[in-house]
Amino acid sequence: MKFIETLREGEKIQEVYLCRRKMTALTKAGKPYESLMLQDKTGTVDAKIWDVGSQGIDEFDELDYIMIVADVTSFQGALQLNVKRVRKMSEGEYDPKDYLPVSDKDIDQMYAELQQYIKSVANPYLNRLLSKFFMEDADFEKRFKFHSAAKSVHHGFVGGLLEHTLSVTRNCAYFAESYPILNRDLLITAAICHDIGKLEELSTFPQNDYTDEGQLLGHIMIGAEMVSDVIKEIDGFPVTLGNELKHCILAHHGELEFGSPKKPALAEALALSFADNLDAKMETLKEIFSSVPEGNLQWLGFNRLLETNLRRTGR
Amino acid sequence: MKFIETLREGEKIQEVYLCRRKMTALTKAGKPYESLMLQDKTGTVDAKIWDVGSQGIDEFDELDYIMIVADVTSFQGALQLNVKRVRKMSEGEYDPKDYLPVSDKDIDQMYAELQQYIKSVANPYLNRLLSKFFMEDADFEKRFKFHSAAKSVHHGFVGGLLEHTLSVTRNCAYFAESYPILNRDLLITAAICHDIGKLEELSTFPQNDYTDEGQLLGHIMIGAEMVSDVIKEIDGFPVTLGNELKHCILAHHGELEFGSPKKPALAEALALSFADNLDAKMETLKEIFSSVPEGNLQWLGFNRLLETNLRRTGR
Amino acid sequence: MKFIETLREGEKIQEVYLCRRKMTALTKAGKPYESLMLQDKTGTVDAKIWDVGSQGIDEFDELDYIMIVADVTSFQGALQLNVKRVRKMSEGEYDPKDYLPVSDKDIDQMYAELQQYIKSVANPYLNRLLSKFFMEDADFEKRFKFHSAAKSVHHGFVGGLLEHTLSVTRNCAYFAESYPILNRDLLITAAICHDIGKLEELSTFPQNDYTDEGQLLGHIMIGAEMVSDVIKEIDGFPVTLGNELKHCILAHHGELEFGSPKKPALAEALALSFADNLDAKMETLKEIFSSVPEGNLQWLGFNRLLETNLRRTGR
Amino acid sequence: MKFIETLREGEKIQEVYLCRRKMTALTKAGKPYESLMLQDKTGTVDAKIWDVGSQGIDEFDELDYIMIVADVTSFQGALQLNVKRVRKMSEGEYDPKDYLPVSDKDIDQMYAELQQYIKSVANPYLNRLLSKFFMEDADFEKRFKFHSAAKSVHHGFVGGLLEHTLSVTRNCAYFAESYPILNRDLLITAAICHDIGKLEELSTFPQNDYTDEGQLLGHIMIGAEMVSDVIKEIDGFPVTLGNELKHCILAHHGELEFGSPKKPALAEALALSFADNLDAKMETLKEIFSSVPEGNLQWLGFNRLLETNLRRTGR
Amino acid sequence: MKFIETLREGEKIQEVYLCRRKMTALTKAGKPYESLMLQDKTGTVDAKIWDVGSQGIDEFDELDYIMIVADVTSFQGALQLNVKRVRKMSEGEYDPKDYLPVSDKDIDQMYAELQQYIKSVANPYLNRLLSKFFMEDADFEKRFKFHSAAKSVHHGFVGGLLEHTLSVTRNCAYFAESYPILNRDLLITAAICHDIGKLEELSTFPQNDYTDEGQLLGHIMIGAEMVSDVIKEIDGFPVTLGNELKHCILAHHGELEFGSPKKPALAEALALSFADNLDAKMETLKEIFSSVPEGNLQWLGFNRLLETNLRRTGR
Amino acid sequence: MKFIETLREGEKIQEVYLCRRKMTALTKAGKPYESLMLQDKTGTVDAKIWDVGSQGIDEFDELDYIMIVADVTSFQGALQLNVKRVRKMSEGEYDPKDYLPVSDKDIDQMYAELQQYIKSVANPYLNRLLSKFFMEDADFEKRFKFHSAAKSVHHGFVGGLLEHTLSVTRNCAYFAESYPILNRDLLITAAICHDIGKLEELSTFPQNDYTDEGQLLGHIMIGAEMVSDVIKEIDGFPVTLGNELKHCILAHHGELEFGSPKKPALAEALALSFADNLDAKMETLKEIFSSVPEGNLQWLGFNRLLETNLRRTGR
Repeated sequence: MKFIETLREGEKIQEVYLCRRKMTALTKAGKPYESLMLQDKTGTVDAKIWDVGSQGIDEFDELDYIMIVADVTSFQGALQLNVKRVRKMSEGEYDPKDYLPVSDKDIDQMYAELQQYIKSVANPYLNRLLSKFFMEDADFEKRFKFHSAAKSVHHGFVGGLLEHTLSVTRNCAYFAESYPILNRDLLITAAICHDIGKLEELSTFPQNDYTDEGQLLGHIMIGAEMVSDVIKEIDGFPVTLGNELKHCILAHHGELEFGSPKKPALAEALALSFADNLDAKMETLKEIFSSVPEGNLQWLGFNRLLETNLRRTGR
Repeated sequence: MKFIETLREGEKIQEVYLCRRKMTALTKAGKPYESLMLQDKTGTVDAKIWDVGSQGIDEFDELDYIMIVADVTSFQGALQLNVKRVRKMSEGEYDPKDYLPVSDKDIDQMYAELQQYIKSVANPYLNRLLSKFFMEDADFEKRFKFHSAAKSVHHGFVGGLLEHTLSVTRNCAYFAESYPILNRDLLITAAICHDIGKLEELSTFPQNDYTDEGQLLGHIMIGAEMVSDVIKEIDGFPVTLGNELKHCILAHHGELEFGSPKKPALAEALALSFADNLDAKMETLKEIFSSVPEGNLQWLGFNRLLETNLRRTGR
Repeated sequence: MKFIETLREGEKIQEVYLCRRKMTALTKAGKPYESLMLQDKTGTVDAKIWDVGSQGIDEFDELDYIMIVADVTSFQGALQLNVKRVRKMSEGEYDPKDYLPVSDKDIDQMYAELQQYIKSVANPYLNRLLSKFFMEDADFEKRFKFHSAAKSVHHGFVGGLLEHTLSVTRNCAYFAESYPILNRDLLITAAICHDIGKLEELSTFPQNDYTDEGQLLGHIMIGAEMVSDVIKEIDGFPVTLGNELKHCILAHHGELEFGSPKKPALAEALALSFADNLDAKMETLKEIFSSVPEGNLQWLGFNRLLETNLRRTGR
Repeated sequence: MKFIETLREGEKIQEVYLCRRKMTALTKAGKPYESLMLQDKTGTVDAKIWDVGSQGIDEFDELDYIMIVADVTSFQGALQLNVKRVRKMSEGEYDPKDYLPVSDKDIDQMYAELQQYIKSVANPYLNRLLSKFFMEDADFEKRFKFHSAAKSVHHGFVGGLLEHTLSVTRNCAYFAESYPILNRDLLITAAICHDIGKLEELSTFPQNDYTDEGQLLGHIMIGAEMVSDVIKEIDGFPVTLGNELKHCILAHHGELEFGSPKKPALAEALALSFADNLDAKMETLKEIFSSVPEGNLQWLGFNRLLETNLRRTGR
Repeated sequence: MKFIETLREGEKIQEVYLCRRKMTALTKAGKPYESLMLQDKTGTVDAKIWDVGSQGIDEFDELDYIMIVADVTSFQGALQLNVKRVRKMSEGEYDPKDYLPVSDKDIDQMYAELQQYIKSVANPYLNRLLSKFFMEDADFEKRFKFHSAAKSVHHGFVGGLLEHTLSVTRNCAYFAESYPILNRDLLITAAICHDIGKLEELSTFPQNDYTDEGQLLGHIMIGAEMVSDVIKEIDGFPVTLGNELKHCILAHHGELEFGSPKKPALAEALALSFADNLDAKMETLKEIFSSVPEGNLQWLGFNRLLETNLRRTGR
Repeated sequence: MKFIETLREGEKIQEVYLCRRKMTALTKAGKPYESLMLQDKTGTVDAKIWDVGSQGIDEFDELDYIMIVADVTSFQGALQLNVKRVRKMSEGEYDPKDYLPVSDKDIDQMYAELQQYIKSVANPYLNRLLSKFFMEDADFEKRFKFHSAAKSVHHGFVGGLLEHTLSVTRNCAYFAESYPILNRDLLITAAICHDIGKLEELSTFPQNDYTDEGQLLGHIMIGAEMVSDVIKEIDGFPVTLGNELKHCILAHHGELEFGSPKKPALAEALALSFADNLDAKMETLKEIFSSVPEGNLQWLGFNRLLETNLRRTGR
């Protein structure tokens, strides 16, 4: 496959890309044309279909994968594709991983590890709850494996939600071992469920953007309600335990100003907020540092999230 | 009835009070005695049962209404009852309004007005939702009429939740008339439901204190979930409308730091937050000013909630 | 009239526009030319007078209304007028409403309603004060009707100050009815006067920008002093009442960090700050939503004032 | 004179004190008595008049100076005067400085120095303004010399307003010399006038408490208006200069959250806010350190205003 | 030994306690007496020596351990010792652990584990630095083992500094394993050194209070300088590495407002701040929960540090 | 010398400039060329060396002074130099003051005044400390005279560190005279040393940028350690005095959020923070106003540091 970052002016190509954006516009002469933004995992490129009605130009929509025949030209210093033919691809004719950012970890292996943590939860009600989501619901599992944990910022890639969830769970397992005041079963359960609301807050790839429900309610409220609904299906689930679990989810951002409606009032809620925050920050640094070669000690500029200039350390 | 604020040293009384607190303690000599705090609507008084095992002292618990025979004495400058006999009262043997703070408005009349607002909601789904709570659920109605809207601060009395809800609803009806961008049906519905979570956040009178669920989840989350659950029971309730309604409830505190997990993102959510905040502040002032005679322009001291010294104005 | 938003490249026009900005510049060749920004109520357009000294080009200044003869050309993708002739217009030769943003309400009708509120103020001193400003001072009335309530943000149009003042007064009338602790006469008076300082803080249209006095003192201080000066002219105006009224004006932004030198310490001051803030926010939303068709539920992006993403609701 | 801090149980005294507070109360037996708080510059003492109607007890009010005949007794570990006779003193029969905190500087000398600064102001309008207040208005001068600059905190003593004003003026004179961008005449004038609003914000000694006007408007607004009123009396006072001076007064607290309705937007306003803040903080430290012997390096505890623990340094 | 919390009125005791405070006062009759606060690990008790000059009363100072003969009496509801004889103890005549709060972990074992971490640091310069402090300096080791990590709050006991340091180091070792972007040697070294400044910021037990140096400089600055001084003694210590290590110490409070002069700008500094904050919070909860029996789900009241009400969870 | 701001298209020049930045790039055709940013004290200009390998093009690096032969052309509206020849200059062949911003005060005279202040410090230890830095260390003196006090903002020019230090010292001398609670020797010493850490925090001109050490530690910590190191060299320097001096340096930013790890806890530390802040703000205004002619009262726009719009005043 010829990736977008390798295109050069003057080439003629036949290639499949993801159509990220599509708009109809008018030339000065008043003739309609299509303006596209095409994407693969290496970047995006502007493309135009000047001859809209012509044969060889299939119907297609934004977020479709399309095979194009095109000339690589340039306009005002940037590359532009002059598209001659378009054919819409069906699932199976392309590999989504060529077009989307993807976790560099093995997704199935991560999911298996997460399931091991679930099996280690001794409390039968919590174990039941986790199983209903993560062991018995194939559709949930499929979505959970494919989802990102963010629109941008950290973990904004296929598998990102799983990778982040597993990492937070590992952190919590370590904390439970280190600090005996922590109720391990509650903490592990809360860790595994803490971001499940993101399945509804963000649309699925390739869109990966805030949904209307996500904008209005947020993943904290959505996740707490998802947990609440499954609790109601489990006979005899202790009321206090259910509220403790929901509290951990509500409070996992740690501070009211970060969108938690309650400050952590249980040790487990506090520990979860540390585990989550730590993983988010470390992944943020990892993503920032990924574009800097090891051993390069240059300062990378002011980072608004961390409110400081940053650099790598040597070894 | 002889109210607590009229008791004088040296009197002997036989009267019914609410037992607010009850603890067993030891005299220096090691003899157990009961230390009580008794309450009526005019105040509280310390009471002791020195002769715990004696005849004439019924079994009773905190929050029971008890008929006592006692001498009024004083200890370290404060009145103290020396209790000789105790009999536990049953419902009907006393009038709770003598013991608890109560709204000075007519509760049934307020509820009828609230129901009028419900009837004015034209959208069938929203009307259905309101009816299920406020028109068809006798137990809900009974609890809603009796509940307070706060542990302390404003509206902390029987009927307080209803009085506050009605007042916020009136404000919203006025706003909807004044500002045509507002969707009246959505706004009225949100106003009526905005604090229903307080039914679970605060225990019922005479206790009127935060419940475990209230501490862990808060009335914002609880209320949103109550609404969510009823929405699920209504066939065809539009998803978008449901999320808008839940958003209004989540955002009604107006700011993240006041416990809303989302800032108001809809005009109706913003209007509701004004209506709620305005009523809370006006009632707070009303309660502060209630102990100051009209025409008295004395400064009343620094108020922590309003962050200023306060006084009444003349007419 | 041919409005700016309808101009197309290649047209030749003879039209009157407001000259918003005018600067003399030099071509690369060192020849002076005039660079103008012309405005009507539909927008602005860049214009050049290349032949500065030529006959047919009248003398004129910024903020003059000018009749131009020009060719519509384009430069770097934007329209540009090549101006051949200029004639300065006198008052009467154009209708300012074609050039300035104007309230969509009837200005005289709004003013009449405001005067009704004034008549409803029973306290003779407050009534006197309002009459001196709004009933007996023709120049004040003329300026008040024409002024905006802001440079940008909400109510930044001809009649905006009146529209906002009336709306705040209506809100206060409603509040006074709903909350008997409020002194209606004081509150209505404060509402009507709360923003009169804007007459000096902002220059009149078409400029509508901060004056030197406005930058240095702000409309809160200016307004309080205007009220203070008129109070001094009224025999026997009670000192306490005067201070209460001035306090309401000083405190109407509600918080020190919003420029009020005092937090609301009277119920009326607090109510006014709600009435003002509510109207400002609702008008802000109305202006934002005005460019979005009803029924369009798209998210409109992050709003810095309201600190949230926003969207309309359906009906 | 026998000062309050030297009184001992068992003494009989005849002495003049300031009656700071006076309340009528009832004994347990229901007999009325007067409860007083008496003050001199060394402290306060509780006093009782048990025999209210008796001969030898003159009529008097709070804030009168009274000659008492009394026994020094004690109650619950604190001294208490049992008052037998009371005679109300007239002005001249006592020296206020024995009863009130007084500046340790010479008041007339400080005032003379302030007048020297006024003479050094070359701008005729500013000089005129200062003269009208400080050179030609004997009543103003008398009040200005006697007033404090605060209810408590720093400079809360007779002459405190003068002492603080002079010190701020000196600081500004130094700043004007050091930083040529500063307009000395404007800055000196602003310094001398910056706190004149305190004449109305605080009542005069011995009361020295916030007035109703002070609570409602604050010394910043009051002072700006006092200046504004005198400017109007001066023919030809330049408008811009008047606004600049008023701005300096409005902005002298430096930050909106400290009650200035405008941030310093002129160099002179910024310099004044430094001069004022510096003098307030240095005097605060001086007053705190005054009770600690030189050379004592003990830590004095957390100070809420300065948000730190404090100690003196050695020499 | 008879511990203070077991004393009862009427007993006569001969016991060794720590004299925490000692002041000379005067009886009403003007006779001097000594007022003491005595302490053991179970609490404190007020004590008086009425007969100061008498035989049998040794010379002693605050923070001495003293053997007393005394009667247990009570005054205003609290126990008070009437001390008849005092003898000052020498080291060895008492066991400090009976008088001071002590870690419930084995101190030598914790120190051995810390040394294992030091041995695991491969970088020769960092290893050298750690060894000079923790392996080769017997006096440092002795002080480090005995010191607390706080005056009050968390880890305010003998061995507290070691316990906290070890726990933070363990957390960092776990983080380094989990997040490969972290430089383990730097992070472990920073963790072990992060609070060594507390050796000078707090005086040693039994005083355990802020020193003058601690008040003026704080443990962050002191610790960075201690590290800096030892770095200078190590030949060839890389400058960049030294600055990175010092940065980690300076930034370990994570935020400027918590006293770090720099925000974490290296991944290791950020990780250290998490490790430290987590351990501090978990220990705080452990200490709060230690007085509540397991299984007790009562709410424990608002905690100012964590800004929330708190309770334990069940198992 | 032909300064950059006077260059015009079409000229041919031979001139010496400072090479601020230098990068190798590729033409579209794949040929390497050098892209330079050249600087003198009047501005910067883009320059290209298209013929990289050609004769007449010396080797040189960023921050070298180079003599170029070039044509002045333009590209996309900005001037660009087409460089034909380059020769690297040696020290002495150019005058740095033509290329760098320089204090408009006489540097040697300022240094002499600073030394006078040093001589006025009577305390022998403080005098010793100052002498070691400022009187006996020629290299230190040379660096101190040449350094700036900032990368940008105020005093960002050659001699800026000296000019700011002297001004702060003068302010402190005035404060010590005005406020007798201040220990003059300590305050003057702290003023002179307060920013010496900037010698390491910022690299020397022409680079004048944050160093790695500066980013990691900051001038506050660096300066305190520099002082600490010299204190150790002075026999008998009193420990308390040393800590007080270091505290003044640590606390001189006044607030934790401005990077001081301690709030001012000594009067001298507080006074120093005022002296420093005042000078920084006044210099900031001076630099802003320097581009506005005296008498121009135009508003200059919102300033982010001072959080306000600004303008000059007239005279």
